[in-house]
Amino acid sequence: MSEVVALTHATLIDGTGEPPVADATVVMADGVISATGSADRVAIPAGADVVDCSGAFVIPGLMDANIHLVSSRTPDTLLDFEGRYEELAFEAAEMALKYGLTTVFDTWGPAAPLVKARDAINAGERTGARFFCAGNIFGLNGPMSEDFFKTGDTFEPETKKRINDVWEIGCGTNLISLSADDIAGALDKYIDATGVDFIKYAASDHRTEGFLLFSETAQRKIVDVCHARGLLVQAHTTTVESLRMEIEAGNDLLQHPDITATTPIPGELMDQIVERQLPCMALFVTERYLEWLSTAKPEAAAARLVSDQNNRAFIANGARVLLTTDAFAYGQRVKNHRGFRPGLLEDSVPDMPTQIGRGHFLWIQAAWERGMEPMEVLRSASSYIAEAYGKDDVLGTVTPGKAADMVILNADPLAAPENYGNIRDVVKGGVVVDRTKLGATTLLADDPGEYR
Amino acid sequence: MSEVVALTHATLIDGTGEPPVADATVVMADGVISATGSADRVAIPAGADVVDCSGAFVIPGLMDANIHLVSSRTPDTLLDFEGRYEELAFEAAEMALKYGLTTVFDTWGPAAPLVKARDAINAGERTGARFFCAGNIFGLNGPMSEDFFKTGDTFEPETKKRINDVWEIGCGTNLISLSADDIAGALDKYIDATGVDFIKYAASDHRTEGFLLFSETAQRKIVDVCHARGLLVQAHTTTVESLRMEIEAGNDLLQHPDITATTPIPGELMDQIVERQLPCMALFVTERYLEWLSTAKPEAAAARLVSDQNNRAFIANGARVLLTTDAFAYGQRVKNHRGFRPGLLEDSVPDMPTQIGRGHFLWIQAAWERGMEPMEVLRSASSYIAEAYGKDDVLGTVTPGKAADMVILNADPLAAPENYGNIRDVVKGGVVVDRTKLGATTLLADDPGEYR
Amino acid sequence: MSEVVALTHATLIDGTGEPPVADATVVMADGVISATGSADRVAIPAGADVVDCSGAFVIPGLMDANIHLVSSRTPDTLLDFEGRYEELAFEAAEMALKYGLTTVFDTWGPAAPLVKARDAINAGERTGARFFCAGNIFGLNGPMSEDFFKTGDTFEPETKKRINDVWEIGCGTNLISLSADDIAGALDKYIDATGVDFIKYAASDHRTEGFLLFSETAQRKIVDVCHARGLLVQAHTTTVESLRMEIEAGNDLLQHPDITATTPIPGELMDQIVERQLPCMALFVTERYLEWLSTAKPEAAAARLVSDQNNRAFIANGARVLLTTDAFAYGQRVKNHRGFRPGLLEDSVPDMPTQIGRGHFLWIQAAWERGMEPMEVLRSASSYIAEAYGKDDVLGTVTPGKAADMVILNADPLAAPENYGNIRDVVKGGVVVDRTKLGATTLLADDPGEYR
Amino acid sequence: MSEVVALTHATLIDGTGEPPVADATVVMADGVISATGSADRVAIPAGADVVDCSGAFVIPGLMDANIHLVSSRTPDTLLDFEGRYEELAFEAAEMALKYGLTTVFDTWGPAAPLVKARDAINAGERTGARFFCAGNIFGLNGPMSEDFFKTGDTFEPETKKRINDVWEIGCGTNLISLSADDIAGALDKYIDATGVDFIKYAASDHRTEGFLLFSETAQRKIVDVCHARGLLVQAHTTTVESLRMEIEAGNDLLQHPDITATTPIPGELMDQIVERQLPCMALFVTERYLEWLSTAKPEAAAARLVSDQNNRAFIANGARVLLTTDAFAYGQRVKNHRGFRPGLLEDSVPDMPTQIGRGHFLWIQAAWERGMEPMEVLRSASSYIAEAYGKDDVLGTVTPGKAADMVILNADPLAAPENYGNIRDVVKGGVVVDRTKLGATTLLADDPGEYR
Repeated sequence: MSEVVALTHATLIDGTGEPPVADATVVMADGVISATGSADRVAIPAGADVVDCSGAFVIPGLMDANIHLVSSRTPDTLLDFEGRYEELAFEAAEMALKYGLTTVFDTWGPAAPLVKARDAINAGERTGARFFCAGNIFGLNGPMSEDFFKTGDTFEPETKKRINDVWEIGCGTNLISLSADDIAGALDKYIDATGVDFIKYAASDHRTEGFLLFSETAQRKIVDVCHARGLLVQAHTTTVESLRMEIEAGNDLLQHPDITATTPIPGELMDQIVERQLPCMALFVTERYLEWLSTAKPEAAAARLVSDQNNRAFIANGARVLLTTDAFAYGQRVKNHRGFRPGLLEDSVPDMPTQIGRGHFLWIQAAWERGMEPMEVLRSASSYIAEAYGKDDVLGTVTPGKAADMVILNADPLAAPENYGNIRDVVKGGVVVDRTKLGATTLLADDPGEYR
Repeated sequence: MSEVVALTHATLIDGTGEPPVADATVVMADGVISATGSADRVAIPAGADVVDCSGAFVIPGLMDANIHLVSSRTPDTLLDFEGRYEELAFEAAEMALKYGLTTVFDTWGPAAPLVKARDAINAGERTGARFFCAGNIFGLNGPMSEDFFKTGDTFEPETKKRINDVWEIGCGTNLISLSADDIAGALDKYIDATGVDFIKYAASDHRTEGFLLFSETAQRKIVDVCHARGLLVQAHTTTVESLRMEIEAGNDLLQHPDITATTPIPGELMDQIVERQLPCMALFVTERYLEWLSTAKPEAAAARLVSDQNNRAFIANGARVLLTTDAFAYGQRVKNHRGFRPGLLEDSVPDMPTQIGRGHFLWIQAAWERGMEPMEVLRSASSYIAEAYGKDDVLGTVTPGKAADMVILNADPLAAPENYGNIRDVVKGGVVVDRTKLGATTLLADDPGEYR
Repeated sequence: MSEVVALTHATLIDGTGEPPVADATVVMADGVISATGSADRVAIPAGADVVDCSGAFVIPGLMDANIHLVSSRTPDTLLDFEGRYEELAFEAAEMALKYGLTTVFDTWGPAAPLVKARDAINAGERTGARFFCAGNIFGLNGPMSEDFFKTGDTFEPETKKRINDVWEIGCGTNLISLSADDIAGALDKYIDATGVDFIKYAASDHRTEGFLLFSETAQRKIVDVCHARGLLVQAHTTTVESLRMEIEAGNDLLQHPDITATTPIPGELMDQIVERQLPCMALFVTERYLEWLSTAKPEAAAARLVSDQNNRAFIANGARVLLTTDAFAYGQRVKNHRGFRPGLLEDSVPDMPTQIGRGHFLWIQAAWERGMEPMEVLRSASSYIAEAYGKDDVLGTVTPGKAADMVILNADPLAAPENYGNIRDVVKGGVVVDRTKLGATTLLADDPGEYR
Repeated sequence: MSEVVALTHATLIDGTGEPPVADATVVMADGVISATGSADRVAIPAGADVVDCSGAFVIPGLMDANIHLVSSRTPDTLLDFEGRYEELAFEAAEMALKYGLTTVFDTWGPAAPLVKARDAINAGERTGARFFCAGNIFGLNGPMSEDFFKTGDTFEPETKKRINDVWEIGCGTNLISLSADDIAGALDKYIDATGVDFIKYAASDHRTEGFLLFSETAQRKIVDVCHARGLLVQAHTTTVESLRMEIEAGNDLLQHPDITATTPIPGELMDQIVERQLPCMALFVTERYLEWLSTAKPEAAAARLVSDQNNRAFIANGARVLLTTDAFAYGQRVKNHRGFRPGLLEDSVPDMPTQIGRGHFLWIQAAWERGMEPMEVLRSASSYIAEAYGKDDVLGTVTPGKAADMVILNADPLAAPENYGNIRDVVKGGVVVDRTKLGATTLLADDPGEYR
């Protein structure tokens, strides 16, 4: 690793909202950006490795505010990969990095393998997107429960418990029968036990229904514990009332607030979201996907159309929006499994929004289609996420002092959304990633391929 | 029907809490009590039918605060009796009356058949316990949903919908995706559409989990609608937080507040219940049943033991308790069905608490075992229920002006709980019921037989 | 009903294999054909009703050797129509007649309702195709068993038994645990109890596997009982070995001998079938359907392609083939049911071969596509079936002494297969059917509409 | 290992049917018996290890004609032990040896792991009962099929196939769609591929029904292939007709011929079995078990009572009977699994007949209860099995030239059946086994403990 690298002759769009700088130079040393600006203002240090970026556009490394790196979601793969889920996280983190995501936020998964994978990547032992994780959704059962698969009676109770424990760590739906104080106590222990970076709790349940798990009182206590421990907090919500409750309870980020079943967000609640500039991790999908869904799965489409209505309102009203895909790294085994959202993961689905390595490009396109300003799109995919997650001291923009995470594009990302897919290079921590070496392992995931 | 009837030489325990009156006379005319008191103070009107009650004890007609008259709970019987559920209600109401229940409160069932049966009984067209009903639990799905049976994919969606609609009338779990205002609006329409007597809504869900359906805001709006319409309101709750929420929302009665999963009611919450004398419809079970359950179904027993702990605290602290069984009229078909609480309805279960015609005797015995004062037991089974449901202007005691509903016992109910089962006669609306004619229809229900 | 009717100026193709007769007259009296031949040889009786058939082609009434008139096949409809399955048979028989089938052979269904419907139609009380029936497939369980639907534990055992008994009459798979002699004894009783016209027994089972039910010894005894009782016998087979066994056991007709899983009929066995001219009820399907299946259901297609190979061999080798569709009268409820061959009954399936009123036209087209001679096609759809089922003394050809069952076509059936669908009139028992009045009842079935 | 060992002062019952020899000496060298007889006739070689057996009874090592060493039968354990099923075989073989079974015949399991375990034990690399194996039941699907567990759709097709392939090796129920010649060809390949010792094919299927898999023709060809390859052959049968078919096809041994569903074996068939002295591997169970079953599982008991009737007839008529348990080595995980014969493996079941290490003692007791002569019991448990399986040249009796496999009992096995459980020592291949070291591994199996 060369200690000093300079990118030259690039057009720089640094993620701060400032206009593009032509013929820019970006200097980085020891993985951190040390200087940026037009060629006439920034000197190239002697001995620096110079990368000529003529014709290219340098933007901050892309981020995804909601991703799931452990992609084992079927009973079979949960058993086949038992004891080595971190391998799945490595595979997914590689795939993310290959397609320009230098940092992702894992909002659901098994805490221990994720923390292990996180630390290995941060220590440079493995290559992959940098990530932060929440572990399980606090209050939900593990993946071999009725929450996720209709596992039924096929499996021994001991087997199900063994797998689910890796997720739950004692904090599944059993919490709902506790008093508010005891729920808060359980969360404190969960944080101690896991070492996670932030908390996501279940305001709504995770089946299709959208039941509530915690009273407003209990939610306030959950938020208090998080803040006392210095962690930001978000919640899984799926209804208007649940969204209102989490906002009143003081959540820092709103996870998929666009999902409100069949009731659009009422005006009063929308106003609050906009005024307080609460970060909205909104699940944008493209027009093409929406059209397909309306034809192929009209029942599922109803809620998605309401979600789209909410998303358009976020943009129109100036809410703070973050790129969010809910993506995981999937391949043939997951797709073929009958129990898992049959028909939604087929190869024939156009613009499938939830595949790591592809979903973020589709989100960008969808944002564009809904009229978001090009510069806003860029920031929603980078600096806004860093700010919302409290990581803007070191991540999110191409400015001095920040980690040297960048994507170098062959075409102007402010001109057309598909240009984000036209990647020349990915830089993480000051190093130009060898993209040809990523995506080679195939435990569960298929490489989505270049997005063109 | 003789217009004037006099019961003579009875020991009268009138349900007001006054001590027993020896050699008492009770006079009733046109179905209403006109005079009561010791023989030397009450004259027998000329021409009255005189019933010599020497050696007997006259008490108010018994009541049950929570019963289900439409006993069709399996998919097969739901289809077999489709279109004539009211016949099942008649059968159950006969069984209740036969064993001394002159008034019962139906807290879950299909509104239209229940209202039809209610009106037929009140109009004297059919014989049976007088009853008041709530229809469905507002917010829950019908019986062919995953809420009740794991109906799965065996049935056509159209068939399930057809049956469930009879319960839901548009107000199933679909409500949870509405805003609080829209939920209130739906309740208003539900009341208009059904003509029910009171409202029970789902604060907790009805599977085993105990998820919440409505935010505190939504619950307050539900209570407001009920009160504006002159209806009392109760909720289905199964956890401590859910119980606290419904109390804060202003519920008039507490339905099975003893059920709080594995967390006993915290002291503060218990204090509130006692201070405000909130009517507690507590599901007492006998020691014998509890012992059986602990051995045969240790997992199910855990929650029941917490419930028992709550129940003992209600009595010890002087809470207002109502006789409550959650009973229905069941027979072989329901018992044999595999999907319906397997193993809990077998004939071999001792002191099965939930059979109409038997459960209320077991409740009385359980109250006695837990140390409730004999006079309190009597009032919990009669006048307290009338008061709690706002029917004490016409029901609940053997005092002038009240409906002439009485049970005539061969033995002293203040001496031993089993004496409630030693029935000489049941009087409803001033008429001595011909008990030998009740319980003859056997659509679904078995006659539990005399309780001795 | 006019007693004497004469069709005049028709082209007559009488089903005997004789060449068409131009300008022919067909005279019928009291429902029976009394004279046929060219106009110059057959006189029109005085007083006869004359139907001018100029430009039309008169052929024998069409027949289907394998049809199912009771179309209730889902658990929901089995319960909804319980006690009145004969209504479903009437509906289906109307649909058959409307589209030219004057006689059909019902090879699987509940005996009692079928016999009731059969007798009502024969007595002229109801309009519909004349039919003969076998009742249940001897040795198979009823429709609420794992044989047909994965009914599982959702239904009470009593309910399943109640429905299945209507089919089984004591002769379900329980027979396989009996000795050969006892199986023969059970068949004797079954014939006595039902009054069916012929017997179809289960040589192979009816799931997907193709297990055998009866040893060769037992099969020979079954055939002996049938012949002793004067009944013809066929078997349900699905494998090559099962087909060989039934042939060696002496079956009179071969039901879908083309279905031999993934093994084509070996040459030796094929030779036997051809030499003995055993009637082959072969399930032809069109090229278009086969192409669709190969693309949409490649796994299901494998066996169908073998079936097609067998069918082509039957034609090429000169086997005796009968029109056979396995059709039933289906509509939306059956199509939507998830448990019933999902994806095979959708409206989008081209040339769906198993709908009553349409399937026989498709069979004719498929026979044509496979190179069967036009005159053979006509006889396979009429006289050959009458002969195979031993009804050729009164049915199957337009010749004196036969029942006056005919179809009058607007176009030449020897010129193109689709001309069979161009129906001018259907005559049954000497009466011109009012086709506009058929297909009006819609309990379960959709009218397939004219085939053009 | 001492090369020459002499047992002295024992009562010898050598399994040939000869009367016991008092004060006998048994000399063995290099694992083979070299001399036996009374002390006065047999000299003890110089330098021999002498084991004083005063007061003890020496009998041949016990054998079980039907056992299953790979005990992984639930989906969970099939996946948990994938790739190392041979470890389960070692565990079970240890348990067998510990309780006196020196040779067992494994009649169902995965061929490759079994052959691997067999060879390791024979080579002396592992301690355990010597065994011979058939691999899978030819024609049945593997354990993750509907044949064994209702695995349903919970598992990915690929996962089920992967596991089932270990059993099927291409020869599952797919065979039933082949012609008889092709079935024979498949068997030839199966023998080549596996190296199994004998063949067991599926005459009946393995669910509850008892369908047939192969025609008589196909069965004859299967037997021919086996004999041409020098292998003995048996079949899985569950009905009278299936039993008759396998006998007519020429099977060498009859596997559980007592199981004939609800029809006892007809006299004619029984006569054949007795006359030809066909070895009957009869599943005897004790009176105590039968009583329990009749009370606890009356439906399951019906067939068992017929089986018992057959078993009594075998003894009464002088059929050749072999000790047969169908046992496997089971423990808590298998017992608790809901899908696997619920209620039949509980600890509370008295005299559970199918546990390795215990079942054979119960079989002996059951034989005694049914009136079998004590000497016959001993031979049924040893020399008769060796003869039936064609191993009597080297196994089955305590006579010169045979492998030195013996059980040394503390009490007379001809005096009472329980004396078989009073084991002083087990000798296998001339070595006194250290029984305290067996049964220590506990992958899946519980040690049944001493039988007293």
